[in-house]
Amino acid sequence: MRILLVGAGGVGSAFCAIAARRDFFEKIVVSDYDGARAEQAAAAVGDARFSAAQVDATSADAVAALVGEHGITHVMNAVDPRFVMPIFDGALAGGADYLDMAMSLSVRHPDKPYEQTGVKLGDQQFAVAQEWESAGRLALVGIGVEPGLSDVFARYAADHLFSEIEELGTRDGSNLTVDGYEFAPSFSIWTTIEECLNPPVIWEADRGWFVTEPFSEPEVFDFPEGIGPVECVNVEHEEVLLMPRWVDCKRATFKYGLGEEFIDVLKTLHKLGLDRTEKVKVGPVEVSPRDVVAACLPNPATLGPKMKGKTCAGLWVTGTGKDGRPRSTYLYHVVDNEWSMAEYGHQCVVWQTAINPVVALELLATGTWKGAGVLGPEAFDAVPFLELLTAYGSPWGIKEL
Amino acid sequence: MRILLVGAGGVGSAFCAIAARRDFFEKIVVSDYDGARAEQAAAAVGDARFSAAQVDATSADAVAALVGEHGITHVMNAVDPRFVMPIFDGALAGGADYLDMAMSLSVRHPDKPYEQTGVKLGDQQFAVAQEWESAGRLALVGIGVEPGLSDVFARYAADHLFSEIEELGTRDGSNLTVDGYEFAPSFSIWTTIEECLNPPVIWEADRGWFVTEPFSEPEVFDFPEGIGPVECVNVEHEEVLLMPRWVDCKRATFKYGLGEEFIDVLKTLHKLGLDRTEKVKVGPVEVSPRDVVAACLPNPATLGPKMKGKTCAGLWVTGTGKDGRPRSTYLYHVVDNEWSMAEYGHQCVVWQTAINPVVALELLATGTWKGAGVLGPEAFDAVPFLELLTAYGSPWGIKEL
Repeated sequence: MRILLVGAGGVGSAFCAIAARRDFFEKIVVSDYDGARAEQAAAAVGDARFSAAQVDATSADAVAALVGEHGITHVMNAVDPRFVMPIFDGALAGGADYLDMAMSLSVRHPDKPYEQTGVKLGDQQFAVAQEWESAGRLALVGIGVEPGLSDVFARYAADHLFSEIEELGTRDGSNLTVDGYEFAPSFSIWTTIEECLNPPVIWEADRGWFVTEPFSEPEVFDFPEGIGPVECVNVEHEEVLLMPRWVDCKRATFKYGLGEEFIDVLKTLHKLGLDRTEKVKVGPVEVSPRDVVAACLPNPATLGPKMKGKTCAGLWVTGTGKDGRPRSTYLYHVVDNEWSMAEYGHQCVVWQTAINPVVALELLATGTWKGAGVLGPEAFDAVPFLELLTAYGSPWGIKEL
Repeated sequence: MRILLVGAGGVGSAFCAIAARRDFFEKIVVSDYDGARAEQAAAAVGDARFSAAQVDATSADAVAALVGEHGITHVMNAVDPRFVMPIFDGALAGGADYLDMAMSLSVRHPDKPYEQTGVKLGDQQFAVAQEWESAGRLALVGIGVEPGLSDVFARYAADHLFSEIEELGTRDGSNLTVDGYEFAPSFSIWTTIEECLNPPVIWEADRGWFVTEPFSEPEVFDFPEGIGPVECVNVEHEEVLLMPRWVDCKRATFKYGLGEEFIDVLKTLHKLGLDRTEKVKVGPVEVSPRDVVAACLPNPATLGPKMKGKTCAGLWVTGTGKDGRPRSTYLYHVVDNEWSMAEYGHQCVVWQTAINPVVALELLATGTWKGAGVLGPEAFDAVPFLELLTAYGSPWGIKEL
């Protein structure tokens, strides 16, 4: 296996640190728009299998050229979701399999943006699934932690815990704080704004996909391992688009434990138009307000040493257990920042995202997972994934609610 | 009288519309960094006494040159307070009197920014008062509505209503809404951020000037003429620096009726660093985050037709009345947006700011007001000002609390 990693930011760098401990691949070419950043991420692991390259992720041709040049078998997309389509197209054009951790972006419904879906997350990718299948190539989409591990949990719950599923409810929360900052998100603010201010999508068996107003259906969810109760709201997320395609259920939701303060910040950014991506004229220059917001905040990848607390990703499944009795179970994965910093030198949120595609690539390398077309994590057997995740030293948990 | 107006924004344009109805001046040269905007503001009044010029308000030399070129007797500063010093210096260098509606900016105390004052509002101007006095030139500072009319009220209260003053408390509030916008400040957001996020200054007879944390001492003040109760907080404002210099009192405060929503927006901007004026690097360009916030919001000068409601500026005076009994009186000035739009074509907040320097200039032109040095409105007799304001068709009010 010869991997082209596109994106040497927080998640990309953690991906390198985790992969470097494994022997399932021959080569990883770390690429980034910023060539120096790619060099730095590749050098940081001190492993001769890693090299660096510059890439323009807006160009499918540039991605395909790198695939050809380095004999790449798998393209690993670790940049923000604006660049999904050129990387995805470039992988197919170059003749490589493809993995990502976020899917092609949505476009809201022109008339009823808070009721009906327009272009949904991943629609652009699923639209060409037939081409991938015909070419015998695999695009394994949404294989970070959320989407990713949450989807693996859905398949596991359906196969091993439930006879009938009422709701697949992804729930994500943390108790992270950052010393010295009044406000410092631990994940890309660009992506967080995109996720949280888009109309959240919900799936129901008798309605299909529909959307609501942002921040709908607030709920306090009590997260395990000492994190405790956090205010969660509906957020647009890939799980809701992926799970119902492969797993029988009556409802699929995603709620993000943003907490009241973060929700207020996002609402204010939106009210002031500072969430916009279209450029505005500011004196002699033009900038995207959302990029300015990101530039004003600390880079989440640099915050690890100042962060404290744990992050939790999981899936709350309700329905009927294998024994025919009502069941309500939370399957989850918690990472303590102190542990991920000490063990890998990467903060817990990016580390938790990055470990899952490494596990998936190892399963693909050994042939335990195989397939063609555009497939979510639910399309594969969950058991070997969860076993390998545990073998990596990062076990998952289960709790009856 | 030959006036150089520097700044053809909202307040400058309203100033022209109000002055055009009066005959106390020979000539007004409307100048702006944007020459076309100056042309437009001068042309809008349809009065041959108005002409336009381009000016760089960061250059005292440029201001002095325009004073010389047009035989200017009075420089009227109507730009944001960043440019006070070059315009103030340029007027003196050119040999003209000077008026402004905001004073030179403060710089917070390096060690105790929320306890002690550093450089105070207006300090740079008062530092050279002797030069103005020696030259026989007048700088009438802070002669908008607040500071301005509020300071006139202070002098009026001391001369005619009170034998002893406990507190001179400026209170400003409105019930304005803007159709079609979720959030649209009716005054320069740049200045509002500057005022509200700087440590608010308070004066007490036995302590002198001191500062507190932003948004301190919240209080609900019940504004007259149907505006009703609004949440007010301490804000850094010129009145507190001006009033105690000329009017005996035990305490001087300024509270701004921001309302809870606006306070929350300002706190969030600060938390995210979006209030900063130092440029940040955003991809290939550099911009000041505060300028980006301003660029994302509608221009307050264009909102008049969509605004509804009234704005109130006033001074709450407590102490002992002339009759020796305790007295608590609010002296105020209310402008209804519907009226100012119909009558002058300018929204109420900028119109209310602009009328006061026109009245003051007329009093200076007729010799009713005269003086030399750097003087606040309190240094002059309040009665002719309040009479002329009423004669302009914009009466003030008084209410016992």
